[in-house]
Amino acid sequence: MKRKALRRLEPVPFAHVSLTDFFWSPRIETNRKKTIPAEYVQCKRTGQLDAWKWKPGKPKQPHIFWDSDVAKWIEAAAYDLALHPNRSLEKKVDDVVNAMEKVQMADGYLNSHYILVEPQNRWTNLRDRHELYCAGHLMEAAAAYYQATGKRKFFDIMCRYANHIARTFGPKKDQKRGYPGHQEIELALVKLYRATGRKSYLDLAEFFVNERGKRPHYFDLEAKARGAAPSEYRGTDYRHHQAHTPVRKQDTAEGHAVRAMYLYAGMADVAGETGDKTLLEACRRLWKNVTGKRMYVTGGIGSTRNGERFTFDYDLPNEEAYAETCAAIGLVFWAHRMLQIDPDGCYADVMERALYNNVPSGVSLDGRGFFYENPLAVHPDAVRYYRYFRRSGDPARKEWFGCSCCPPNIARLYASLGEYIYGKRRNEAWIHLYAAGRAAIDIGSQTITLEQETGYPWKEKVVVKVSPARAASFPLALRIPGWCRKAALKVNGRTVRPPVRKGYARIKRTWKKGDRVELTLPMPVELVEAHPGVRANAGRVAIQRGPVVYCLEEADNGRDLQDLVLNKSGLRAKYDPRLLGGVCTVTGKAYRREWKGGLYDRGKAKRTAVNIKAVPFATWANRRVGEMAVWILRSS
Amino acid sequence: MKRKALRRLEPVPFAHVSLTDFFWSPRIETNRKKTIPAEYVQCKRTGQLDAWKWKPGKPKQPHIFWDSDVAKWIEAAAYDLALHPNRSLEKKVDDVVNAMEKVQMADGYLNSHYILVEPQNRWTNLRDRHELYCAGHLMEAAAAYYQATGKRKFFDIMCRYANHIARTFGPKKDQKRGYPGHQEIELALVKLYRATGRKSYLDLAEFFVNERGKRPHYFDLEAKARGAAPSEYRGTDYRHHQAHTPVRKQDTAEGHAVRAMYLYAGMADVAGETGDKTLLEACRRLWKNVTGKRMYVTGGIGSTRNGERFTFDYDLPNEEAYAETCAAIGLVFWAHRMLQIDPDGCYADVMERALYNNVPSGVSLDGRGFFYENPLAVHPDAVRYYRYFRRSGDPARKEWFGCSCCPPNIARLYASLGEYIYGKRRNEAWIHLYAAGRAAIDIGSQTITLEQETGYPWKEKVVVKVSPARAASFPLALRIPGWCRKAALKVNGRTVRPPVRKGYARIKRTWKKGDRVELTLPMPVELVEAHPGVRANAGRVAIQRGPVVYCLEEADNGRDLQDLVLNKSGLRAKYDPRLLGGVCTVTGKAYRREWKGGLYDRGKAKRTAVNIKAVPFATWANRRVGEMAVWILRSS
Repeated sequence: MKRKALRRLEPVPFAHVSLTDFFWSPRIETNRKKTIPAEYVQCKRTGQLDAWKWKPGKPKQPHIFWDSDVAKWIEAAAYDLALHPNRSLEKKVDDVVNAMEKVQMADGYLNSHYILVEPQNRWTNLRDRHELYCAGHLMEAAAAYYQATGKRKFFDIMCRYANHIARTFGPKKDQKRGYPGHQEIELALVKLYRATGRKSYLDLAEFFVNERGKRPHYFDLEAKARGAAPSEYRGTDYRHHQAHTPVRKQDTAEGHAVRAMYLYAGMADVAGETGDKTLLEACRRLWKNVTGKRMYVTGGIGSTRNGERFTFDYDLPNEEAYAETCAAIGLVFWAHRMLQIDPDGCYADVMERALYNNVPSGVSLDGRGFFYENPLAVHPDAVRYYRYFRRSGDPARKEWFGCSCCPPNIARLYASLGEYIYGKRRNEAWIHLYAAGRAAIDIGSQTITLEQETGYPWKEKVVVKVSPARAASFPLALRIPGWCRKAALKVNGRTVRPPVRKGYARIKRTWKKGDRVELTLPMPVELVEAHPGVRANAGRVAIQRGPVVYCLEEADNGRDLQDLVLNKSGLRAKYDPRLLGGVCTVTGKAYRREWKGGLYDRGKAKRTAVNIKAVPFATWANRRVGEMAVWILRSS
Repeated sequence: MKRKALRRLEPVPFAHVSLTDFFWSPRIETNRKKTIPAEYVQCKRTGQLDAWKWKPGKPKQPHIFWDSDVAKWIEAAAYDLALHPNRSLEKKVDDVVNAMEKVQMADGYLNSHYILVEPQNRWTNLRDRHELYCAGHLMEAAAAYYQATGKRKFFDIMCRYANHIARTFGPKKDQKRGYPGHQEIELALVKLYRATGRKSYLDLAEFFVNERGKRPHYFDLEAKARGAAPSEYRGTDYRHHQAHTPVRKQDTAEGHAVRAMYLYAGMADVAGETGDKTLLEACRRLWKNVTGKRMYVTGGIGSTRNGERFTFDYDLPNEEAYAETCAAIGLVFWAHRMLQIDPDGCYADVMERALYNNVPSGVSLDGRGFFYENPLAVHPDAVRYYRYFRRSGDPARKEWFGCSCCPPNIARLYASLGEYIYGKRRNEAWIHLYAAGRAAIDIGSQTITLEQETGYPWKEKVVVKVSPARAASFPLALRIPGWCRKAALKVNGRTVRPPVRKGYARIKRTWKKGDRVELTLPMPVELVEAHPGVRANAGRVAIQRGPVVYCLEEADNGRDLQDLVLNKSGLRAKYDPRLLGGVCTVTGKAYRREWKGGLYDRGKAKRTAVNIKAVPFATWANRRVGEMAVWILRSS
């Protein structure tokens, strides 16, 4: 029985979207000019870029993660090249591709570590050794590079590799019934399927999704085949890999957060293409669990450093938060895919939350420093102390990491950020995110231009100029953000009240060149409370304005931030063009205790009124190292 | 130059003190009737009691910790025997002693593990292998058993062992310059010195104290001698053992909390005997750091499970608190020793805090269950989840542990608890703690009897009947607890206002039989705040009444305790004879949020008024497993 594809929206490709906004365009520019070149230098320094040229006995032996870091860097470079052709950058990529071509095995196999270091062991440890994960990233990079440059070499290399993988893994008797220990290839195979139309790639993605968690457990079987005892592995608890049970039986997000996001994104991709509703239902259940019980207000996920993973419902500690940059990026990927299947603002809300908060926290404003972890409270003494016991992240951003997944992940996301803003289907145009700039959208039989004029996320007003080549009737769907209580819409100066369904206002009319939609999204400073089950946030509030979550930094507010008590009234937002690249700050009144006692004291300490200033969480740690806190006590 | 001993007070031995109070006497009785016998059964079951009879090839091979657990059990049994002669119990001890005697080596060496399992390796790894620690506990046990029964065999065995150790370790050329990786023997040697008058024992204790932390580092030298790389050891950071620098240079309490307490108690003992003021100064500085910056309100110490150790100033997380039972007991030992040198209520205050809170939390009311860790907040989901990652303790008390230091430590403390209550010097009598009962105190040329009539710690009034054999003039020093704001004193019904110095009211008069001192210690329910540096307690208060710290339990208050907000007024204490063995409860008003939102919600949730009931922290977890919290939000 042929199932009907479930995807109902398509993204407008980033190549058709230009951005001139306050928030993204400087970041994308920095990404282009600083991050992508700096990451090239890092990958060169570590030996990652030359991994395929490595010879036994030489230093910098290729590591099992390396191909994926290089792949993400190439993917970022490719997106950049699509918009800004650049011979020198292209040559850098081609050099790597040529080296790959030389070592690719006759059967198509391609992995720098395994080919050059331990060829006899390929495909013997899917659980721990990242082969399929690296393959997936290389596929994504190859598809992006082909699309950007029209050059087929890398793409063909990766199709050969994909064909090899499709021969190696599958349900047939002479095939391995394995699946990746670190997901990624599922969504990459769907990209290859879309680029080539070859159904075998989609079938393989579906096979990997469906096989996961089945009994007898493949990870046990391959361990035994290697002569290893499966019981030695974390008590054979495969939650880490979301392989504890078949995916359709998974109701709660478990295990390693990045693996989970890539899996769920891959599941959404497969469901979207194959029309598998049981798989889509699993995605929806997991979405509800992640975003309803296991997500930080910043869009971060993964509550603990132990296993970089989800813990349990409402367990969202602030200082101990892992909230890996890659996991928030993965959440954006998943949300974006869900949005294409279920055009519902709930997905775009979460995507926006992660994009304006946890994701940009992962990179410094100068584009050269990165956080792996994005906790919601930081105390430098604690960071220093607990680092010694490997229980805390970095006090300041770093230029690179031993396992450097996050930096190139940011680079590829920023370089293709335009892709997340608009959507289309048949003759409809959709706006998911607000950002000044322009998009050319093919709908029906013509290309229309949408131009956003807005100071979003700092300003409340968004003007959308609609310019069809010729007058045409089509619906324009504008997202009304979940954080907004009272949106107002005008068309050509006249108030309209179109139906709002699932978070989108849908204006259907005959549009002609020069039509002007004016959307006002009031952005009062709001205090957000967390569910009572969130132990860390009892008695505390987070400041949010529009999609932006704020934090207090020591630079503005002194030490002992956790002891500040916020007055609920008198909070004011003000745009400061000179601070942190230009941000709205939030100022207000608070008090702190005047403490004269020792460690403990009976009775109530006196209080001193103080002024506080909050800055966007996205921009924290761009000044000196110091305390930071998102959740603040509030006077009751 | 002979230095003058610094000890100014002596404790009144527990054998001269009887207790009939509400708090201790039932616990001591349970300790006698349930705990000591149950621990015998456990030590028998594990093979610990028969370690000295073990033969190679048999199961239950002696472990390096075992001698210490058995020693503490014997010590507890000895204290019990001193008050309640019991042939059968004595025989149990004698059996162990006879077995020890048989294996003791000709040179005096005695350690079940090393003699029977790896005799070639004795004294080769002081850092990790607990030989001197076990020796110390055996010495304490031997001294107690000799004192209780008059039998010398065990005592002589241990003197021979001590002599062997004194020959082996020391400053001479043919001696090892080592010192214990786990302190304990220092204070034990001082006990042996006091029991025998042999100065070599005191000298050895002093040597161990003085040698600690010197360079070149003994732990490095012995590692090299074993062929091990010192650098493999936790980055050669010997803070764990308080061996990072000589003890006189130590200003902050670092490393493993139990090791630290035993060291500091030993330092106080050595300083008290030798008159070494530089050592005493180090003790005072460390005391200030521990009790002023690194101690829980329950008297618990050790903020983290990682290394069971101190972290940094004001870092006192509640759920993650380690607060090992043994560490609080060690704090009692140290406080008690400091009190003899500096008769100052600040030491008795901390001793009392630990004794009424963290210590009794370590054992169930039925005397058969034990906590190793005593966190100040518990959420069963978190305990369950993080246990999997070895990041949390037990959700309920256990009968025994693999390394079972805490249960027999409680047993020996409870069995000798009378020793902590009274003090004396020359012709003075001191009362440190209040508890109904009677003490016979030798002062000057006669024995006086002090009898306390009191419902302490639940009731405010303490009547002390003073009965000298014949009328005599002497000072009676009564502690005015640090928690008490307005103590009132009467003698024979008339108000007196004696001078209060360093926490003690000193009544000097001619006492005659039947004199009656009436001390009123008002015990309002008080809300305690923590220093603003204590991140976990910002916005929160702890309920304290008299010396007793309270907590909320799920059994009385439902779930999500962290979200309850306490009203500051209307708190009431009431004695409930049927609850938890008879306790004062504290009831009051609070509110909790009526939550209708999802994970995050803007605006303020409605509040519902609720009644709360707090019970002593000492008695928590004696009903069903559930949430517990000491620090409660309070309305501002």
